[in-house]
Amino acid sequence: MSFSLVRKISGQSQTWRQIQGHFGKIIGSEGVQTKGFFVRNFSLSSPVTMRFVQYSKGADEKTHLGILSADGKTISSLSTYGNDMIEFMKTEVDLGELSKKISSLPSEAVTKDVTLQAPVSNPEKIVCIGLNYRGHCEEQNLTPPVRPMFFSKFASTLVGPTGSVIAHEISTQIDWEVELAVVIGKTAKKVPREKAYDYVFGYCVAQDISARDWQKVLNNKQFLIGKSMDTFCPLGPAIVHKSLIPDPHNLKICCSINGVQKQSGNTNELIFRIDDIINRLTQSITLRPGDVILTGTPGGVGMFRNPPEYLKPGDVIESEIEGLGKLTNTVIKDD
Amino acid sequence: MSFSLVRKISGQSQTWRQIQGHFGKIIGSEGVQTKGFFVRNFSLSSPVTMRFVQYSKGADEKTHLGILSADGKTISSLSTYGNDMIEFMKTEVDLGELSKKISSLPSEAVTKDVTLQAPVSNPEKIVCIGLNYRGHCEEQNLTPPVRPMFFSKFASTLVGPTGSVIAHEISTQIDWEVELAVVIGKTAKKVPREKAYDYVFGYCVAQDISARDWQKVLNNKQFLIGKSMDTFCPLGPAIVHKSLIPDPHNLKICCSINGVQKQSGNTNELIFRIDDIINRLTQSITLRPGDVILTGTPGGVGMFRNPPEYLKPGDVIESEIEGLGKLTNTVIKDD
Repeated sequence: MSFSLVRKISGQSQTWRQIQGHFGKIIGSEGVQTKGFFVRNFSLSSPVTMRFVQYSKGADEKTHLGILSADGKTISSLSTYGNDMIEFMKTEVDLGELSKKISSLPSEAVTKDVTLQAPVSNPEKIVCIGLNYRGHCEEQNLTPPVRPMFFSKFASTLVGPTGSVIAHEISTQIDWEVELAVVIGKTAKKVPREKAYDYVFGYCVAQDISARDWQKVLNNKQFLIGKSMDTFCPLGPAIVHKSLIPDPHNLKICCSINGVQKQSGNTNELIFRIDDIINRLTQSITLRPGDVILTGTPGGVGMFRNPPEYLKPGDVIESEIEGLGKLTNTVIKDD
Repeated sequence: MSFSLVRKISGQSQTWRQIQGHFGKIIGSEGVQTKGFFVRNFSLSSPVTMRFVQYSKGADEKTHLGILSADGKTISSLSTYGNDMIEFMKTEVDLGELSKKISSLPSEAVTKDVTLQAPVSNPEKIVCIGLNYRGHCEEQNLTPPVRPMFFSKFASTLVGPTGSVIAHEISTQIDWEVELAVVIGKTAKKVPREKAYDYVFGYCVAQDISARDWQKVLNNKQFLIGKSMDTFCPLGPAIVHKSLIPDPHNLKICCSINGVQKQSGNTNELIFRIDDIINRLTQSITLRPGDVILTGTPGGVGMFRNPPEYLKPGDVIESEIEGLGKLTNTVIKDD
């Protein structure tokens, strides 16, 4: 067994232990280790995508659990493992074993009757970071902060990758913020930086929709209301297992409104990196399976454009991150 | 049937419809309506206390559901209704019917082996209000706000009425704030003020423990981290059904540290009242059964004392509200 593998990730030399933590159980056997290392080739050549989804069928609100195929056209049902992603993560299923079984799982076509939902339901926490991209600091003429600024969104903000975003009547300044989301897989307390990826399950795309008037003025400068209105957190399309994303700090990230690109950046701009964020948060706050961390947004949000631009009913928000997929959310009227 | 009853509550004339909303199903029949109206006599003369608790036994972490007797010495088991308070509220059990059955439910003595836990587990939201008592504004030399300031605590902050509060090592300024907590019983969206109490299940005592350094400085002025460290929300001892609290805006509220009274006020000082808070929040945020609203704290917190006082391991925090009971929480070292 070749345990002397060393790989440059994020400008830091990583030991085998760190790489193993990063890739998790899927690289438990020697053969798969190699594949895990050359993970992009692996994901293209194999039907084992480890892109976990929650979905509903027709008008039935019940949520099912599945794995989305590499081409996004079929879902392998994980019904034998239950119907809730957070419960699935808690059971710590051996993903190496699961990957061997996928071809024998019942599958169904992704048609207009199968709607992808947010890939976690009712997480205990959605933690967000403000001002975490240099570009987003620059557009506000702000010096990058010396400490991260954490705020939160309620779980009632979650909608799926094609869900509607409500243009709440009480705001006239609803804005977009595409973000890389980290999904926690294991209970995490006082985690050192070098072990942080052991607690990550995977990644997805998020929109941190923000009512700027409520974020900045109408709630006495506390972000909560401006960030937590219903439908203000589109999430998905799938939780892509960490084994498929060897370097989460080198992904193109962009957002378009009505087909016009507004945000374009790369997660390599992150000021506070994922391991640092997990280390800092867990000094006093226990993270649990299903908790979601939104890692901040690049420059190009509506508020700091000249003139400012805000969302209105009918607008289509497309949010995309390299290797993680795309959200397409339509803004609707507040009824 | 005498539906012309009118009662002055909170300085506003209330119609029968509003009183019915306030007292809920327990006053569904004519006979009980009268008792509901003279609810203080009712609660003193009857074993039907409608004080809902979650509790554990011995070292077993499993939570049970029960009703605490008026003298606090016994618990009637609600195991036939499940073991989770939020699920119980969702089923909308007829409390009038339940009250008739209580004497026939199995009961157990409250001994050292029965530990009361927080009366809700993993609520979707804990919403808090800053600066909602005139006394707490005055001690900071602040003008009472024209709009409420909402912030939040994660559900991972919850501990029971005798649970320990961790003196997190990363803070040197951990402070107390006794608060009246409102527990939501039904899904609430765009609720008018006059119907707000239809959505309230009951009330309990809360402590909004706060790390002032993190609240004010170390998280770039966003309250989240300073308010959300593990164990920072003692809650209980029971959810007292709203039928037992005819006027939640006229309750003595106080907090002692190591037997010395530090806070003493009355909920009649509230700047934004419960119906107003529910109306404002639900304009954009859906409240769900089990959601907890902390309504603010009276003057006397540690930070604004001269000199400032903060909590340290070994300190005992006693938090009490008239008619709702008392929390007794000990501060422990961060291990």
